[in-house]
Amino acid sequence: MNIPELDLKRVVIIGGGFAGLNLAKKLDKKAYQVVLLDKNNYHTFQPLLYQVATSGLEPDSIGYPIRKTFKASKNFHFRWVEVTKIDTSSKIVYTNCGDLKYDKLVIATGAVTNFFNMDDVAQKAIPMKSLVESLDLRSKILQNFEQALYVNDLKEQERLMNFIIVGGGPTGVELAGALAELKKHVLANDYPDLDIRRMNIHLIEAAPRVLAPMSENASKKAHNFLKKLGVNVWTNMQVKHFDGKLVTTNSDKTFSCETLIWAAGVKGDPINGIDASNIKNNRIIVNEFNRIETQDDVYAIGDIAFQTSKDYPKGYPMLGSVAMQQGIHLGKNLNRLLKGKNMNAFKYLDKGTMATVGRNLAVVDLPKFKFQGFFAWFVWMFVHLMLLVGFRNKLVVFINWAWSYIWFDKGTRLIVRPFKKNSK
Amino acid sequence: MNIPELDLKRVVIIGGGFAGLNLAKKLDKKAYQVVLLDKNNYHTFQPLLYQVATSGLEPDSIGYPIRKTFKASKNFHFRWVEVTKIDTSSKIVYTNCGDLKYDKLVIATGAVTNFFNMDDVAQKAIPMKSLVESLDLRSKILQNFEQALYVNDLKEQERLMNFIIVGGGPTGVELAGALAELKKHVLANDYPDLDIRRMNIHLIEAAPRVLAPMSENASKKAHNFLKKLGVNVWTNMQVKHFDGKLVTTNSDKTFSCETLIWAAGVKGDPINGIDASNIKNNRIIVNEFNRIETQDDVYAIGDIAFQTSKDYPKGYPMLGSVAMQQGIHLGKNLNRLLKGKNMNAFKYLDKGTMATVGRNLAVVDLPKFKFQGFFAWFVWMFVHLMLLVGFRNKLVVFINWAWSYIWFDKGTRLIVRPFKKNSK
Repeated sequence: MNIPELDLKRVVIIGGGFAGLNLAKKLDKKAYQVVLLDKNNYHTFQPLLYQVATSGLEPDSIGYPIRKTFKASKNFHFRWVEVTKIDTSSKIVYTNCGDLKYDKLVIATGAVTNFFNMDDVAQKAIPMKSLVESLDLRSKILQNFEQALYVNDLKEQERLMNFIIVGGGPTGVELAGALAELKKHVLANDYPDLDIRRMNIHLIEAAPRVLAPMSENASKKAHNFLKKLGVNVWTNMQVKHFDGKLVTTNSDKTFSCETLIWAAGVKGDPINGIDASNIKNNRIIVNEFNRIETQDDVYAIGDIAFQTSKDYPKGYPMLGSVAMQQGIHLGKNLNRLLKGKNMNAFKYLDKGTMATVGRNLAVVDLPKFKFQGFFAWFVWMFVHLMLLVGFRNKLVVFINWAWSYIWFDKGTRLIVRPFKKNSK
Repeated sequence: MNIPELDLKRVVIIGGGFAGLNLAKKLDKKAYQVVLLDKNNYHTFQPLLYQVATSGLEPDSIGYPIRKTFKASKNFHFRWVEVTKIDTSSKIVYTNCGDLKYDKLVIATGAVTNFFNMDDVAQKAIPMKSLVESLDLRSKILQNFEQALYVNDLKEQERLMNFIIVGGGPTGVELAGALAELKKHVLANDYPDLDIRRMNIHLIEAAPRVLAPMSENASKKAHNFLKKLGVNVWTNMQVKHFDGKLVTTNSDKTFSCETLIWAAGVKGDPINGIDASNIKNNRIIVNEFNRIETQDDVYAIGDIAFQTSKDYPKGYPMLGSVAMQQGIHLGKNLNRLLKGKNMNAFKYLDKGTMATVGRNLAVVDLPKFKFQGFFAWFVWMFVHLMLLVGFRNKLVVFINWAWSYIWFDKGTRLIVRPFKKNSK
């Protein structure tokens, strides 16, 4: 891979998400040579993917070139590759562009969409886990409307204008709300030839309430906000099949639709070369130092890591905040090692969770304080702006949000990449 | 196509470029039903495509959703279709989504890339005439660099880092300049593992000087600006072949490269159904009212129209400014018709031409005043900002330009769509 051989120990990080990026930033690059591998040349700010899908933001606003983050760093090397397997006995990472020796390996590959072994759903539904998938979804939404213009059969038209979102977690809730606002403020104006009342948005959640991991009050409020925006919320319901036209569930309710958006969950996808004994629920078991105990010098952080603590006997939740904290913490620990110091155990600090449903409508659960409505919405925006990588992205996103807020408009509804997957 | 049948005359416009969009805006939609057809759901501001290709702007900044432009218009209908042919005797337009009767038809389909019948070049070179092609080119530039990292053979590495631009018109000159600035300010920092001196930019022009239609002084200055930025300019040279690896020319000079960017010219591509007698140089012959004389109620405007005047015996140049003026003029004329008035003959008002090479470096030829350098660059920016459709686009582009100017940085270098065409 043409990476210089130095006298420094080489840390190879697989994955430039919240965990890997923060680790790479934290590592002392005078003391370590750091190599970051990712299958994209950019970091994705996943919490805002739903805004790209609903024409609110451009992909460039929530993707950040990894090379740009580290452009002034010595002893840092990025490679745009896909890792095929690792060999922990000879300490080699194999990729589609050659192999690489490591001294320490950190796996930060995140999670993939979990279709719960439903093959037809996996094939026909649209996931929303990457920038590319969000752009696909954006195209799909707009193309459905363009297509509906030529349809004379009202049932078929309604099928095209039906959007079923599965999963009432933050992603599903935020997407449902954004889609409802897109309907009201944009699509209704853009498609005067269509009767916008035929567009229906359904949110399906298996648990008894949306935002199940949040407080009951947050769930209730979010549910009400969604209803207010015209979203049909179905709790205690599980999707069973989708043939590209009809969704069947565990009840007798079915949905005729062209578009099933899958936000029902994620799972780990351990890399080839991890011993089976170190895998649990598709995640890699690590100790309190994020180290795999039986494979030398291999660490895992972020969604892919299965790490327990007294308060989290079933493992930490797969959240950006956990990933970020683990990345920073492991960075500090690896720096400590070089100075002959011991590693510190990781402890997750829960700073709270939040979700936004729409304009002025959000819910925030802080450890000691829970609130909803306008102020929550304001806090949600502020926190997300601050978390975005790069000042330019912050600025552009802020302008887009301010613009939408004032003018009830979304900027970007270009079909740049015609949707192929499900189209006829 | 589910377009309501009204008592109004129906004007069908094919193409939402500068000509078609301005015509549609100008037409009196109380008196006409207007149907605009385009194969994209957005208008493309073509003069800034090169900035999308060189990571300076997002596609959303220079594409504008056509539906958004007309969202408050009664009796206006947009359809996202490809026209397959027209039948001027029965007054029907055929598309991939059904057919449509018209009372008046306006062809505003613009131009396509002209490869001058060189099949291998057409297959292997990258054109830059659409938003999608610009994104392809952006991916290609970045992917070449990623690929160069794994190459041990220096000749092969240089081949990947060689960029040959054919055509010394505004597009070629502006692209060459932008690429040179990308090299200096971005790629050199982003790829510290590569020796940036191996990246070479060549601009090939068949005429004796770049920007041949502009004043000699403008040509000379632009040439010097390009040299200053490190671009190798080859005039009096014609490309003959490109096999994907080697460019041969009419001289003994050859270029070993992976990327040949084709900006050497455009041509009309008349729609199926225009009589051969009405076609000249691939353009549609129209009279001073932009009407085809021997086919009833059919008009052509913009690049596709071949219209002569005393000052332009060989036809008006294929320029955005001509297209815009013809669109507005025909709109007024069609509105006059309804009031029983005669049409006015079109006359092109040349407001001047300009091109920018880089930071503080531009050339402007006004009819009575020619200037170059910083002030020209400032005027270029101002004019292009004002011509962009939509205030939001103006604002976002302005911020991006200001940002790049202050920080010598380009925001967007995400490889969202891996380049497929030439890749192995």
